[in-house]
Amino acid sequence: MMKSLAASKITIVGLGLMGGSLAGALKGRCSAVTGVDARPKAIEIALAQGLIDDATDLRSAVSSADIIVLATPVRVIMELIPKIAPWLAPGSLLMDLGSTKRQILEVMAATPDHIEVLGGHPMCGKELSGVEAADPALFQACTFILSPLPRTSEEALALGRELVLAVGAVPLLIEGERQDYLVGTLSHLPYLLACSLVSTAHETTSADPLAWQIVAGGYRDTSRVAGSDVEMWLDILMTNREHIVAAAEVCQAQLAHIVEMIASGDRARLSEKLSHIRQARGEMFP
Amino acid sequence: MMKSLAASKITIVGLGLMGGSLAGALKGRCSAVTGVDARPKAIEIALAQGLIDDATDLRSAVSSADIIVLATPVRVIMELIPKIAPWLAPGSLLMDLGSTKRQILEVMAATPDHIEVLGGHPMCGKELSGVEAADPALFQACTFILSPLPRTSEEALALGRELVLAVGAVPLLIEGERQDYLVGTLSHLPYLLACSLVSTAHETTSADPLAWQIVAGGYRDTSRVAGSDVEMWLDILMTNREHIVAAAEVCQAQLAHIVEMIASGDRARLSEKLSHIRQARGEMFP
Repeated sequence: MMKSLAASKITIVGLGLMGGSLAGALKGRCSAVTGVDARPKAIEIALAQGLIDDATDLRSAVSSADIIVLATPVRVIMELIPKIAPWLAPGSLLMDLGSTKRQILEVMAATPDHIEVLGGHPMCGKELSGVEAADPALFQACTFILSPLPRTSEEALALGRELVLAVGAVPLLIEGERQDYLVGTLSHLPYLLACSLVSTAHETTSADPLAWQIVAGGYRDTSRVAGSDVEMWLDILMTNREHIVAAAEVCQAQLAHIVEMIASGDRARLSEKLSHIRQARGEMFP
Repeated sequence: MMKSLAASKITIVGLGLMGGSLAGALKGRCSAVTGVDARPKAIEIALAQGLIDDATDLRSAVSSADIIVLATPVRVIMELIPKIAPWLAPGSLLMDLGSTKRQILEVMAATPDHIEVLGGHPMCGKELSGVEAADPALFQACTFILSPLPRTSEEALALGRELVLAVGAVPLLIEGERQDYLVGTLSHLPYLLACSLVSTAHETTSADPLAWQIVAGGYRDTSRVAGSDVEMWLDILMTNREHIVAAAEVCQAQLAHIVEMIASGDRARLSEKLSHIRQARGEMFP
């Protein structure tokens, strides 16, 4: 029988934007929140901002916890799972916040059977990174994907849902491969487009000093995610390569098609295409 | 001797998002704001919301005004200029709010010498359109490009600046060709990327009902401008084709380069590229 969230000791490994925010959102809603981070400065800030109750070393923190949440970049999550699994108490719940799920779930599947495992991915963030940017309200109303493994018990899944609801988010169950396909287009592709846009401006118009004075809202919004943490993104891109490359190929074809209509001055066909797109976006954000 | 802004009668032709907002921002800062729009409903709303002092037909409105601002889509601006120019009072100032300038300035250059002409382009907006979305605060702190012609007098330019400052915006002088080059990358290209992204999702992930629940902030921001008025955009794209196509080609090459590094798993080179891009965006929005 697993403990309730309120009775659980929770350890968050990785006190960056996401880990620090989750810690702050859980503090007071569980028995204790313990933080782990290799950087003493991150621990210091998390304590000073009241995001965690205490901090200790990795082994002590994970072995004494009822719920362990890995909030590091994806590659570190995949390194940590086999490393810490033997230290975890029987029946404890191991979760993560990684943006890609298939490879993480494969690593989780290889852990000893006496621990519970559950993939997680909150669909929120901001272009700032680090615990300095942490905000316990970050998860409010955001969709929080949960990806159970076949071995994940009903009880463990229920506890995961309780945690998601406790931080103000909305749980959504998706299996790993399907979530990687969806976020490849809906989260990872936007990052590539933002980067391509910034890179284009950097190569061309940025040479004109006036360019800095006319970057308007459209550019600011479209480029926003290009400002987010590079290491986090490298891990995401490297662990979702097939879906991202496929999404980018569709997008390149779409862009080429639109550009071709502009170049040839085909206003009628362009009008039809852009109207269709505008309608599609309206349906996405009613 | 031109009148001061406070003593000027101003006519705004086209009461959409931009025209309606400008009218509201100028009302009370000049002698009177008269609105012109072919749609009786737009007039009705503009009057009800207190954006304009009165409304009348095009010829009466422009012939009695000291300042005339054309706030329609670009193609209509280019049709209106030769049509109304003969009706304008000697010494009156004809401006526009079009997103592209070179072609509009060419049409302005062909007007009779007894009127003053000055191109304008406020670098603001939102994805909503129509007078219902008008907001007199829209121009606060936004860059407002002014593109004078060789014949534009110092006095007319000073009056244009006064108008820009009166609505809370920051005037920036750029000649037409240079502004079209800059906004081609900094405003028009983001629109194409937003459209390509929405189109990609529409062709692929939108078939999965869960997609609608996980569209995150990155997607929302990157796709935002794809929701804006299509007729406005068609005119922009058709009157800045060369610069937009050139910008899109650079961007397509940048995207292809990034995708190639992802496909080949070249983490080291990708890291260098993305870090460079992140730094560039940081310099754009310090």
